[in-house]
Amino acid sequence: MVEQFDVVDLIKTKRDRGSLSTAQLGWLVDAYTRGYVADEQMSAMTMAIFLNGMSRDEIRDLTMAMIASGERLDFSGLSKRTTDKHSTGGVGDKITLPLAPLVASFGVAVPQLSGRGLGHTGGTLDKLESIPGWRANLTNDEFMAQLESVGAVISAAGSGLAPADGKLYALRDITGTVEAIPLIASSIMSKKIAEGTGALLLDVKFGSGAFMQDPARARELAETMVALGQDAGVAIRALLTNMNVPLGRAIGNANEVRESVEVLAGGGPADVVELTVALAREMLELAGVPDADVEAALGDGRAMDAWRAMIAAQGGDPDAPLPIARESETVRADRAGVVVAMPALPFGIAAWRLGAGRARKQDPVQHAAGIDLHVKPGDAVAAGDPLFTLSADEPERFARALEALAGAYRVGAPGDPVDDGGPLIAARIP
Amino acid sequence: MVEQFDVVDLIKTKRDRGSLSTAQLGWLVDAYTRGYVADEQMSAMTMAIFLNGMSRDEIRDLTMAMIASGERLDFSGLSKRTTDKHSTGGVGDKITLPLAPLVASFGVAVPQLSGRGLGHTGGTLDKLESIPGWRANLTNDEFMAQLESVGAVISAAGSGLAPADGKLYALRDITGTVEAIPLIASSIMSKKIAEGTGALLLDVKFGSGAFMQDPARARELAETMVALGQDAGVAIRALLTNMNVPLGRAIGNANEVRESVEVLAGGGPADVVELTVALAREMLELAGVPDADVEAALGDGRAMDAWRAMIAAQGGDPDAPLPIARESETVRADRAGVVVAMPALPFGIAAWRLGAGRARKQDPVQHAAGIDLHVKPGDAVAAGDPLFTLSADEPERFARALEALAGAYRVGAPGDPVDDGGPLIAARIP
Repeated sequence: MVEQFDVVDLIKTKRDRGSLSTAQLGWLVDAYTRGYVADEQMSAMTMAIFLNGMSRDEIRDLTMAMIASGERLDFSGLSKRTTDKHSTGGVGDKITLPLAPLVASFGVAVPQLSGRGLGHTGGTLDKLESIPGWRANLTNDEFMAQLESVGAVISAAGSGLAPADGKLYALRDITGTVEAIPLIASSIMSKKIAEGTGALLLDVKFGSGAFMQDPARARELAETMVALGQDAGVAIRALLTNMNVPLGRAIGNANEVRESVEVLAGGGPADVVELTVALAREMLELAGVPDADVEAALGDGRAMDAWRAMIAAQGGDPDAPLPIARESETVRADRAGVVVAMPALPFGIAAWRLGAGRARKQDPVQHAAGIDLHVKPGDAVAAGDPLFTLSADEPERFARALEALAGAYRVGAPGDPVDDGGPLIAARIP
Repeated sequence: MVEQFDVVDLIKTKRDRGSLSTAQLGWLVDAYTRGYVADEQMSAMTMAIFLNGMSRDEIRDLTMAMIASGERLDFSGLSKRTTDKHSTGGVGDKITLPLAPLVASFGVAVPQLSGRGLGHTGGTLDKLESIPGWRANLTNDEFMAQLESVGAVISAAGSGLAPADGKLYALRDITGTVEAIPLIASSIMSKKIAEGTGALLLDVKFGSGAFMQDPARARELAETMVALGQDAGVAIRALLTNMNVPLGRAIGNANEVRESVEVLAGGGPADVVELTVALAREMLELAGVPDADVEAALGDGRAMDAWRAMIAAQGGDPDAPLPIARESETVRADRAGVVVAMPALPFGIAAWRLGAGRARKQDPVQHAAGIDLHVKPGDAVAAGDPLFTLSADEPERFARALEALAGAYRVGAPGDPVDDGGPLIAARIP
C-alpha cells in the first residue's frame, strides 16, 4: 500500500493532545487492518486515546473507518422495517431472548447479531446454545430468509463486519485499554452500523455488575454512541439502566432461557418484564410502530409463537428439556429478617466460577451451571429460608464461587435500609 | 518463567496514575527481556509512563531492573581511576573526541562507550570511523588493556550491557514514546551504571539543536539522571549546556575530526575549546584530580599525544588524510551586514540530508559529507563573503539541504539584535 502518513507522527499527535483528521484515521485503521501498522504501534495509539480522549469528529471518523474495513449488510430487500438492540451487558441480562420475538410479533424485523460472554457478564449466544439443536451460525441467505419469515433472528456476527474492530478489540484486551469511551463506542457502533439496521436501541448499563459502573461514565458512553448513530443516519435511542442488582432470578445460561420463556408465557420476574416491555416499546417506536400494546403480546401467546418459530428456524427444539447441572448447593438465611443487599458483581463472578462463563475466548461454557436467586433485596425471610442455589457440573467449583459471594449478600433486621440498587430505568437519551 | 504479576494489571496501574513497586518493575523488565511480556503490552505501558510519569523511586527501580537484565563491567582491576561523560547530543557536538584524550593525559582512565548518530544529531563512532583504519569494536580484553596503557578508549557498547534498554529503545522509537524523561533517564543511566564507572559527568543540552529543546525539561532530565547516579553510588554531576547554535564550525564527520585535532593542537573554535576545558575540569574533579591545568595540556601537546595513542591503539592512522567530499557548494552573503541568526536545528537537518547522518539504523553515513561554517552569529560580513560550505558525495543532495536552511540563517544590518543562543554553560547540577 502507499504510505500516506507516518504512524509515529500520528501517535505523537494524539500523545500531545492533538486531533487526528478524517484522512489520518481512515489511513490508520486501513493500515492496521492490513498489518502495515504494527500491533505495538496501535497499542501505543490506543493508550494515548485512552488517556487523552477523542473529539466527537474523531470518534465518528474512527467508527466510519472501522465500518469501511469490512462489508455492510443491506436490508433494503426486506418487506419489513428493521430494528435492533444492543446491551452493554450485565449479570442476568437475558433480555434479548424475550425481546427479539416480542418485537418481531408486531411485524418488525429484528436482526440481532450477538456475541459470547467473556468475564462475569454472560453472552446471548451462550444462553441460546443450551437449547438442544439450536445453532448460532447462519449463512447470509438463511439470515435474510428468517428475517422475512419469522422476523426475529439472533445469530453470531460474521467476521466480515468491521474486521478492524475484531483485531483492535483483541489488542485492547491484552494492553489495558478496553475501558476508553471513544474505543468502546466506536467498537459497538461500527458493528451495529455495518449491520445496516435502520433503527437501534441501546441499553447502556451502570452499577456494580455493569461494564461501566459509574452512572456518569455510562451516560457519556450512551451520549457518544447516540451521536455516532445520528451522524450515520440511524434512528437511535439509549436507555440508561440499572445493573446494581442481578436482573431477574436466574444467572447462567439454561436457567436464563427458562426465565425468558416464563416472561414469554406472561409471567417471569417483575424487573425482567419491566425492562423487556420498556425496551420493546422503544424499539417499536423507533421502527415506526408507536403505542404498541406489548403487554398484550406477552399475555396472549403472540410473543411465545414468535419465540418458538425463531428457535425452530435455527434448528432448536423449543420443547426439549434444558440441561440440568449434576450438583447444586443452596445457601440459606442464618437469621430471620430482610434481604438488604445482593450486589450484581459478586453474583456474576460466582456464576462465572461455577462454569457459566469463560476466562478465555476459546473456553466452552457449562450450560447448566449458574445461580438461581430465591429472594431479591427487600424480601423478608425466616431463618433457614433458601436465599439462592448454586449449580455446577463439577462440585469442586462451589468453594471458589462461595468465596466470591462472601460478605456480598446480607440479611438485616426489619427496618434496616435496603439496597435495591435504585430505579431500573434511570434515563432516556435523547 | 513463573508468572508473578499480570502485565495487564500493571499497565492499568500506571494508566490510572498509580505507582509500580520494585518487585513489579523488576518482573516487568525481566519478563519483557525474555519475551514473556509482548511488545504491544510494553508499548502501551511506555505510553502510559510517557503521559502519567514516574516517581523518583519508580525511575530508580526501572533503571536497576534494566541494569540487572545484562552484565556489568568491572574496572576495579585497573591501576587508574575512571571517569566517564555522556552528552545528550547536538549539532556539531564532537567534544568527546578532544575531551577523552585530554582527560586521559592526566592519568585518569576514560572508558567512553559511545553510539552512532540517528536523525539530525551525529554519533561519536561515525565521526571517528572517518579515520582510515580506526575500529569501534573492541574485545573486553582489548578495552581493558587500552584503558590501562593509553587511558582513553572510545568504542562501541557491547550488546551485553542493559539489553532490556536496547529492546525497549527500539520499541519506543517506533511508538512515539522516546521523549519521556523517566524513560530517557533510565535508558542513559542503566548503560552508564552498568559500565561500572566511578565518576560520571553529564552534558545535558537544551535549545533548537538539542533533543530536549526546552531548558526546563532539560534541567528536569539532568536532575533525574543525577539522582539516579547518586542512588547508585556514582560521583556524578551535570552541566546544562546551550545547543541553540551549532557547536564549533564543523558539522559532519571527517570535518568534526579535523576540528577536534585543531583543539588538541591548542587551536580550534572558542566555543569548542570552552566546553572541552569546562567538561575536562569537571571530569577530573569528579575523579579526584581537582584544579588540573587542562589548558596547558592542550597547549603543550600532552592531549595530542594521548589522542594519537588512542587512535593508533584502535587501528587508526592519526596521520592519514581524512576523506574529502566529491562536491561542495558555498553559500555567500547577499548583502553586507552582521550574521544575526544561525540556529542549530536546520543546520543539523541539512548536514543529515547531505549524507552525514542516517535515517535508518542500518544506513551507512558518508564520512566526508557535512557543513563548514565560515561565520558565526555576531560576525560582520561583506556582500559576497562565504557564510558556509556544504559538502556531499552526491550533488543531488544540495537542493534538499538548502531547503532545510531556507530562512534559517540571516544577515542583518549592523546594530540588529544578534541571536547568539546565549551563554554556553547555563547551569551545574548539583
